Amino acid sequence: MASAVAGPEIERLIQLLARLPGLGPRSARRAALHLIKKREALMTPLSSALQVAIGKIQVCKTCGNIDTQNPCTVCTDPRRDQSIIVVVADVADLWALERANASNGLYHVLGATLSPLDGVGPQDLTIDALVKRAHEPQVGEIILALNATVDGQTTAHYITDLLQEANVRVTRLAHGVPVGGELDYLDEGTLSAAMRQRTLF
Amino acid sequence: MASAVAGPEIERLIQLLARLPGLGPRSARRAALHLIKKREALMTPLSSALQVAIGKIQVCKTCGNIDTQNPCTVCTDPRRDQSIIVVVADVADLWALERANASNGLYHVLGATLSPLDGVGPQDLTIDALVKRAHEPQVGEIILALNATVDGQTTAHYITDLLQEANVRVTRLAHGVPVGGELDYLDEGTLSAAMRQRTLF
Repeated sequence: MASAVAGPEIERLIQLLARLPGLGPRSARRAALHLIKKREALMTPLSSALQVAIGKIQVCKTCGNIDTQNPCTVCTDPRRDQSIIVVVADVADLWALERANASNGLYHVLGATLSPLDGVGPQDLTIDALVKRAHEPQVGEIILALNATVDGQTTAHYITDLLQEANVRVTRLAHGVPVGGELDYLDEGTLSAAMRQRTLF
Repeated sequence: MASAVAGPEIERLIQLLARLPGLGPRSARRAALHLIKKREALMTPLSSALQVAIGKIQVCKTCGNIDTQNPCTVCTDPRRDQSIIVVVADVADLWALERANASNGLYHVLGATLSPLDGVGPQDLTIDALVKRAHEPQVGEIILALNATVDGQTTAHYITDLLQEANVRVTRLAHGVPVGGELDYLDEGTLSAAMRQRTLF
Protein backbone atom coordinates (compact mmCIF):
# COMPACT_ATOMS: atom_id res chain seq x y z
CA MET A 1 0.00 0.00 0.00
CA ALA A 2 2.64 2.47 1.08
CA SER A 3 4.60 2.01 -2.12
CA ALA A 4 1.57 3.22 -4.03
CA VAL A 5 1.61 6.54 -2.18
CA ALA A 6 5.03 7.96 -2.65
CA GLY A 7 6.49 6.55 -5.83
CA PRO A 8 9.14 3.83 -6.12
CA GLU A 9 12.06 6.28 -6.01
CA ILE A 10 11.00 7.66 -2.63
CA GLU A 11 10.27 4.16 -1.30
CA ARG A 12 13.76 3.09 -2.35
CA LEU A 13 15.24 6.04 -0.47
CA ILE A 14 13.21 5.15 2.63
CA GLN A 15 14.35 1.52 2.45
CA LEU A 16 18.00 2.54 2.27
CA LEU A 17 17.66 5.05 5.11
CA ALA A 18 15.99 2.34 7.22
CA ARG A 19 19.21 0.33 7.02
CA LEU A 20 21.14 3.00 8.95
CA PRO A 21 21.69 2.11 12.60
CA GLY A 22 19.37 4.19 14.75
CA LEU A 23 16.68 4.52 12.08
CA GLY A 24 13.83 2.05 11.90
CA PRO A 25 11.23 1.86 9.11
CA ARG A 26 9.13 4.57 10.73
CA SER A 27 11.91 7.05 11.43
CA ALA A 28 13.39 6.37 7.99
CA ARG A 29 10.11 7.56 6.52
CA ARG A 30 10.23 10.66 8.70
CA ALA A 31 13.86 11.23 7.71
CA ALA A 32 13.03 10.88 4.02
CA LEU A 33 10.20 13.37 4.33
CA HIS A 34 12.49 15.77 6.17
CA LEU A 35 15.07 15.44 3.41
CA ILE A 36 12.46 16.01 0.72
CA LYS A 37 11.16 19.11 2.45
CA LYS A 38 14.69 20.49 2.76
CA ARG A 39 15.73 19.58 -0.75
CA GLU A 40 18.12 22.49 -1.21
CA ALA A 41 19.33 22.84 2.38
CA LEU A 42 19.89 19.19 3.26
CA MET A 43 19.06 16.61 0.61
CA THR A 44 21.33 17.96 -2.12
CA PRO A 45 24.26 18.62 0.28
CA LEU A 46 23.89 15.14 1.78
CA SER A 47 23.89 13.57 -1.65
CA SER A 48 27.09 15.41 -2.58
CA ALA A 49 28.71 14.72 0.79
CA LEU A 50 28.11 11.01 0.27
CA GLN A 51 29.56 11.20 -3.22
CA VAL A 52 32.64 13.07 -2.03
CA ALA A 53 33.16 10.71 0.90
CA ILE A 54 32.74 7.61 -1.29
CA GLY A 55 35.55 8.85 -3.48
CA LYS A 56 37.88 9.82 -0.67
CA ILE A 57 37.50 7.31 2.16
CA GLN A 58 40.49 5.14 2.86
CA VAL A 59 41.48 2.69 5.54
CA CYS A 60 44.79 3.61 7.17
CA LYS A 61 47.34 0.90 6.36
CA THR A 62 49.13 1.48 9.64
CA CYS A 63 46.37 1.54 12.23
CA GLY A 64 43.11 0.67 10.44
CA ASN A 65 41.45 4.04 11.12
CA ILE A 66 39.02 5.30 8.50
CA ASP A 67 40.04 8.64 7.04
CA THR A 68 40.35 10.53 3.81
CA GLN A 69 44.10 10.15 3.87
CA ASN A 70 46.38 7.15 4.22
CA PRO A 71 48.27 6.95 6.55
CA CYS A 72 45.52 8.62 8.60
CA THR A 73 45.55 11.99 10.35
CA VAL A 74 46.38 10.41 13.70
CA CYS A 75 49.31 8.35 12.38
CA THR A 76 50.82 11.31 10.54
CA ASP A 77 50.39 13.80 13.40
CA PRO A 78 53.94 14.54 14.68
CA ARG A 79 52.56 15.71 18.06
CA ARG A 80 51.30 12.21 18.81
CA ASP A 81 53.21 10.08 21.31
CA GLN A 82 54.77 7.42 19.09
CA SER A 83 55.59 5.20 22.08
CA ILE A 84 51.95 4.42 22.89
CA ILE A 85 49.59 2.25 20.85
CA VAL A 86 45.95 2.14 21.94
CA VAL A 87 44.33 -1.10 20.75
CA VAL A 88 40.61 -0.85 19.92
CA ALA A 89 38.18 -3.33 18.41
CA ASP A 90 36.48 -0.93 16.05
CA VAL A 91 36.95 2.44 14.37
CA ALA A 92 33.92 3.64 16.36
CA ASP A 93 35.89 3.03 19.56
CA LEU A 94 38.85 4.98 18.16
CA TRP A 95 36.57 7.90 17.36
CA ALA A 96 34.97 7.71 20.81
CA LEU A 97 38.38 7.86 22.52
CA GLU A 98 39.41 10.77 20.28
CA ARG A 99 36.20 12.65 21.12
CA ALA A 100 37.01 12.12 24.79
CA ASN A 101 40.56 13.30 24.14
CA ALA A 102 41.51 10.24 26.14
CA SER A 103 44.94 9.52 24.69
CA ASN A 104 47.73 11.24 22.84
CA GLY A 105 49.10 7.97 21.49
CA LEU A 106 48.61 6.13 18.23
CA TYR A 107 45.93 3.50 17.61
CA HIS A 108 45.53 0.00 16.31
CA VAL A 109 42.13 -1.14 15.10
CA LEU A 110 41.63 -4.92 15.45
CA GLY A 111 38.48 -4.93 13.33
CA ALA A 112 36.57 -7.09 15.82
CA THR A 113 37.03 -9.04 19.04
CA LEU A 114 37.69 -12.77 19.26
CA SER A 115 34.39 -14.60 19.37
CA PRO A 116 34.67 -18.38 18.96
CA LEU A 117 30.89 -18.77 19.01
CA ASP A 118 30.54 -16.41 16.05
CA GLY A 119 33.48 -18.01 14.28
CA VAL A 120 35.75 -14.96 14.75
CA GLY A 121 39.29 -16.25 15.27
CA PRO A 122 42.70 -14.53 15.57
CA GLN A 123 43.19 -14.65 11.79
CA ASP A 124 40.16 -12.38 11.36
CA LEU A 125 41.76 -9.65 13.46
CA THR A 126 44.79 -7.50 12.68
CA ILE A 127 46.72 -9.13 15.53
CA ASP A 128 49.82 -10.05 13.48
CA ALA A 129 50.25 -6.43 12.45
CA LEU A 130 49.87 -5.35 16.07
CA VAL A 131 52.55 -7.76 17.28
CA LYS A 132 54.84 -6.45 14.54
CA ARG A 133 54.20 -2.85 15.58
CA ALA A 134 54.77 -3.75 19.23
CA HIS A 135 58.29 -4.88 18.35
CA GLU A 136 59.23 -1.52 16.84
CA PRO A 137 61.88 0.09 19.07
CA GLN A 138 60.01 3.35 19.78
CA VAL A 139 56.93 1.55 21.18
CA GLY A 140 56.88 1.34 24.98
CA GLU A 141 53.24 0.76 25.92
CA ILE A 142 50.28 -1.07 24.45
CA ILE A 143 46.96 0.06 25.98
CA LEU A 144 44.19 -2.48 25.47
CA ALA A 145 41.04 -0.33 25.18
CA LEU A 146 38.64 -3.21 24.56
CA ASN A 147 35.08 -3.65 25.69
CA ALA A 148 34.62 -4.98 29.21
CA THR A 149 32.71 -7.95 27.79
CA VAL A 150 33.67 -11.62 27.69
CA ASP A 151 34.80 -11.33 24.06
CA GLY A 152 36.69 -8.11 24.75
CA GLN A 153 38.51 -9.56 27.73
CA THR A 154 39.26 -12.84 25.92
CA THR A 155 40.84 -10.79 23.16
CA ALA A 156 42.80 -8.76 25.69
CA HIS A 157 44.22 -11.93 27.32
CA TYR A 158 45.07 -13.44 23.95
CA ILE A 159 46.96 -10.32 22.86
CA THR A 160 48.73 -9.98 26.21
CA ASP A 161 50.08 -13.53 25.82
CA LEU A 162 51.36 -12.79 22.32
CA LEU A 163 53.09 -9.61 23.51
CA GLN A 164 55.11 -11.38 26.24
CA GLU A 165 58.24 -11.35 24.11
CA ALA A 166 57.90 -7.75 22.97
CA ASN A 167 59.63 -5.20 25.16
CA VAL A 168 56.42 -3.29 25.96
CA ARG A 169 54.19 -2.56 28.94
CA VAL A 170 50.69 -3.93 28.30
CA THR A 171 47.95 -2.04 30.14
CA ARG A 172 44.16 -1.96 30.00
CA LEU A 173 41.46 0.54 30.81
CA ALA A 174 40.44 0.86 34.46
CA HIS A 175 37.16 -0.56 35.65
CA GLY A 176 35.13 1.67 37.91
CA VAL A 177 32.16 3.90 38.53
CA PRO A 178 31.21 5.86 35.36
CA VAL A 179 31.54 9.63 35.85
CA GLY A 180 28.09 10.83 36.85
CA GLY A 181 27.05 7.29 37.68
CA GLU A 182 25.03 6.41 40.76
CA LEU A 183 26.25 3.56 42.91
CA ASP A 184 22.92 1.85 43.47
CA TYR A 185 22.38 1.49 39.73
CA LEU A 186 25.73 -0.23 39.19
CA ASP A 187 26.25 -3.97 38.95
CA GLU A 188 28.22 -5.84 41.62
CA GLY A 189 31.15 -6.56 39.31
CA THR A 190 31.73 -2.89 38.60
CA LEU A 191 31.33 -1.93 42.24
CA SER A 192 33.82 -4.47 43.53
CA ALA A 193 36.27 -3.58 40.73
CA ALA A 194 35.93 0.09 41.64
CA MET A 195 36.56 -0.77 45.27
CA ARG A 196 39.62 -2.91 44.50
CA GLN A 197 41.09 -0.27 42.19
CA ARG A 198 40.30 2.65 44.50
CA THR A 199 42.69 5.60 44.27
CA LEU A 200 43.97 8.15 46.77
CA PHE A 201 41.71 11.16 47.12
CA MET B 1 39.43 17.24 18.18
CA ALA B 2 37.02 14.95 16.42
CA SER B 3 37.46 16.79 13.15
CA ALA B 4 41.14 15.97 13.26
CA VAL B 5 40.41 12.22 13.35
CA ALA B 6 38.25 11.52 10.37
CA GLY B 7 38.95 14.14 7.76
CA PRO B 8 36.73 17.10 6.83
CA GLU B 9 34.73 15.16 4.22
CA ILE B 10 33.63 12.54 6.73
CA GLU B 11 32.90 15.20 9.36
CA ARG B 12 30.73 17.02 6.84
CA LEU B 13 28.81 13.81 6.17
CA ILE B 14 28.33 13.26 9.91
CA GLN B 15 27.07 16.82 10.37
CA LEU B 16 24.50 16.42 7.60
CA LEU B 17 23.33 13.05 8.89
CA ALA B 18 22.94 14.58 12.36
CA ARG B 19 20.30 16.93 10.93
CA LEU B 20 17.99 14.04 10.13
CA PRO B 21 15.17 13.62 12.63
CA GLY B 22 15.90 10.63 14.86
CA LEU B 23 19.67 10.92 14.54
CA GLY B 24 21.69 12.88 17.10
CA PRO B 25 25.39 13.73 16.83
CA ARG B 26 26.37 10.35 18.28
CA SER B 27 24.10 8.18 16.18
CA ALA B 28 25.00 10.23 13.09
CA ARG B 29 28.61 9.24 13.68
CA ARG B 30 27.57 5.61 14.02
CA ALA B 31 25.45 5.91 10.87
CA ALA B 32 28.36 7.45 8.93
CA LEU B 33 30.67 4.66 10.03
CA HIS B 34 28.09 2.08 9.03
CA LEU B 35 27.76 3.72 5.61
CA ILE B 36 31.53 3.80 5.16
CA LYS B 37 31.87 0.14 6.07
CA LYS B 38 29.14 -0.77 3.59
CA ARG B 39 30.39 1.45 0.83
CA GLU B 40 29.21 -0.75 -2.05
CA ALA B 41 26.11 -2.22 -0.42
CA LEU B 42 24.64 0.92 1.15
CA MET B 43 26.59 4.16 0.74
CA THR B 44 26.71 4.19 -3.05
CA PRO B 45 23.06 3.09 -3.45
CA LEU B 46 21.94 5.73 -0.93
CA SER B 47 23.86 8.42 -2.75
CA SER B 48 22.23 7.45 -6.05
CA ALA B 49 18.78 7.11 -4.48
CA LEU B 50 19.07 10.65 -3.13
CA GLN B 51 20.15 11.92 -6.53
CA VAL B 52 17.29 10.17 -8.31
CA ALA B 53 14.75 11.36 -5.75
CA ILE B 54 16.03 14.95 -5.92
CA GLY B 55 15.41 14.96 -9.63
CA LYS B 56 11.97 13.37 -9.48
CA ILE B 57 10.19 14.64 -6.39
CA GLN B 58 7.18 16.81 -6.98
CA VAL B 59 4.41 18.27 -4.85
CA CYS B 60 0.95 17.29 -6.09
CA LYS B 61 -0.85 20.41 -7.28
CA THR B 62 -4.20 18.96 -6.29
CA CYS B 63 -3.67 17.62 -2.78
CA GLY B 64 -0.14 18.62 -1.71
CA ASN B 65 1.15 15.05 -1.42
CA ILE B 66 4.81 14.49 -2.21
CA ASP B 67 5.36 12.02 -5.03
CA THR B 68 7.37 11.46 -8.16
CA GLN B 69 4.38 12.29 -10.32
CA ASN B 70 2.01 15.26 -10.40
CA PRO B 71 -0.92 14.86 -9.86
CA CYS B 72 0.14 12.23 -7.34
CA THR B 73 -0.54 8.49 -7.34
CA VAL B 74 -3.49 8.89 -4.96
CA CYS B 75 -5.18 11.67 -6.93
CA THR B 76 -4.84 9.78 -10.25
CA ASP B 77 -5.98 6.40 -8.87
CA PRO B 78 -9.41 5.75 -10.42
CA ARG B 79 -10.29 3.27 -7.63
CA ARG B 80 -10.25 6.08 -5.07
CA ASP B 81 -13.53 7.41 -3.74
CA GLN B 82 -13.69 10.88 -5.30
CA SER B 83 -16.45 11.97 -2.93
CA ILE B 84 -14.23 11.93 0.17
CA ILE B 85 -11.42 14.36 1.00
CA VAL B 86 -9.29 13.56 4.05
CA VAL B 87 -7.72 16.76 5.38
CA VAL B 88 -4.30 16.33 7.00
CA ALA B 89 -1.79 18.82 8.35
CA ASP B 90 1.28 17.22 6.88
CA VAL B 91 2.39 14.76 4.21
CA ALA B 92 3.65 12.52 7.05
CA ASP B 93 0.04 12.23 8.28
CA LEU B 94 -1.11 11.32 4.78
CA TRP B 95 1.52 8.60 4.58
CA ALA B 96 0.57 7.32 8.04
CA LEU B 97 -3.10 7.05 7.07
CA GLU B 98 -2.14 5.28 3.84
CA ARG B 99 0.04 2.82 5.72
CA ALA B 100 -2.94 2.11 7.98
CA ASN B 101 -5.10 1.71 4.90
CA ALA B 102 -7.47 3.97 6.82
CA SER B 103 -9.30 5.64 3.94
CA ASN B 104 -10.09 5.07 0.31
CA GLY B 105 -10.71 8.75 -0.33
CA LEU B 106 -8.56 11.56 -1.63
CA TYR B 107 -6.44 13.83 0.53
CA HIS B 108 -5.77 17.48 1.13
CA VAL B 109 -2.50 18.50 2.80
CA LEU B 110 -2.81 21.79 4.70
CA GLY B 111 0.94 22.15 5.18
CA ALA B 112 0.58 23.00 8.88
CA THR B 113 -1.99 23.70 11.56
CA LEU B 114 -3.09 27.16 12.64
CA SER B 115 -0.82 28.38 15.41
CA PRO B 116 -1.25 32.05 16.29
CA LEU B 117 1.61 31.87 18.83
CA ASP B 118 4.01 30.72 16.11
CA GLY B 119 2.61 33.22 13.62
CA VAL B 120 0.95 30.55 11.47
CA GLY B 121 -2.28 32.03 10.11
CA PRO B 122 -4.90 30.80 7.59
CA GLN B 123 -2.96 32.33 4.68
CA ASP B 124 -0.06 29.96 5.43
CA LEU B 125 -2.27 26.91 4.94
CA THR B 126 -3.86 25.61 1.74
CA ILE B 127 -7.33 26.35 3.13
CA ASP B 128 -8.55 28.36 0.10
CA ALA B 129 -7.81 25.43 -2.18
CA LEU B 130 -9.61 23.09 0.20
CA VAL B 131 -12.75 25.27 0.25
CA LYS B 132 -12.67 25.33 -3.55
CA ARG B 133 -12.35 21.55 -3.70
CA ALA B 134 -15.18 21.15 -1.19
CA HIS B 135 -17.50 22.99 -3.58
CA GLU B 136 -16.88 20.55 -6.42
CA PRO B 137 -20.10 18.62 -7.09
CA GLN B 138 -18.71 15.11 -6.58
CA VAL B 139 -17.39 15.87 -3.07
CA GLY B 140 -19.73 14.70 -0.31
CA GLU B 141 -17.58 14.42 2.81
CA ILE B 142 -14.59 16.23 4.28
CA ILE B 143 -12.85 14.18 6.99
CA LEU B 144 -10.70 16.34 9.26
CA ALA B 145 -7.82 14.04 10.23
CA LEU B 146 -5.94 16.59 12.32
CA ASN B 147 -3.91 16.11 15.47
CA ALA B 148 -5.93 16.02 18.70
CA THR B 149 -3.93 19.01 19.94
CA VAL B 150 -5.06 22.57 20.60
CA ASP B 151 -3.66 23.76 17.26
CA GLY B 152 -5.14 20.79 15.42
CA GLN B 153 -8.58 21.32 16.90
CA THR B 154 -8.45 25.10 16.35
CA THR B 155 -7.71 24.40 12.70
CA ALA B 156 -10.55 21.87 12.53
CA HIS B 157 -13.03 24.42 13.93
CA TYR B 158 -11.80 27.14 11.58
CA ILE B 159 -12.20 24.89 8.54
CA THR B 160 -15.61 23.63 9.67
CA ASP B 161 -16.85 27.24 9.83
CA LEU B 162 -15.58 27.96 6.31
CA LEU B 163 -17.25 24.85 4.94
CA GLN B 164 -20.74 25.77 6.24
CA GLU B 165 -21.84 26.92 2.79
CA ALA B 166 -20.43 23.96 0.92
CA ASN B 167 -22.80 21.06 0.47
CA VAL B 168 -20.56 18.57 2.34
CA ARG B 169 -20.60 16.55 5.52
CA VAL B 170 -17.67 17.56 7.73
CA THR B 171 -16.46 14.79 10.04
CA ARG B 172 -13.45 14.26 12.26
CA LEU B 173 -11.51 11.27 13.60
CA ALA B 174 -12.95 9.54 16.68
CA HIS B 175 -11.30 9.96 20.06
CA GLY B 176 -10.83 6.81 22.08
CA VAL B 177 -8.62 4.14 23.52
CA PRO B 178 -5.71 3.32 21.18
CA VAL B 179 -5.79 -0.30 19.98
CA GLY B 180 -3.57 -2.25 22.35
CA GLY B 181 -3.70 0.61 24.85
CA GLU B 182 -4.13 0.02 28.56
CA LEU B 183 -6.76 2.05 30.34
CA ASP B 184 -4.74 2.98 33.41
CA TYR B 185 -2.06 4.60 31.25
CA LEU B 186 -4.55 6.81 29.43
CA ASP B 187 -5.28 10.42 30.29
CA GLU B 188 -8.69 11.44 31.61
CA GLY B 189 -9.63 13.34 28.46
CA THR B 190 -9.19 10.29 26.28
CA LEU B 191 -11.00 8.05 28.73
CA SER B 192 -14.06 10.25 29.02
CA ALA B 193 -14.13 10.78 25.23
CA ALA B 194 -13.93 7.01 24.74
CA MET B 195 -16.80 6.58 27.20
CA ARG B 196 -18.97 9.25 25.55
CA GLN B 197 -18.36 7.86 22.08
CA ARG B 198 -18.80 4.22 23.11
CA THR B 199 -20.13 1.88 20.43
CA LEU B 200 -22.32 -1.22 20.46
CA PHE B 201 -20.39 -4.45 21.02
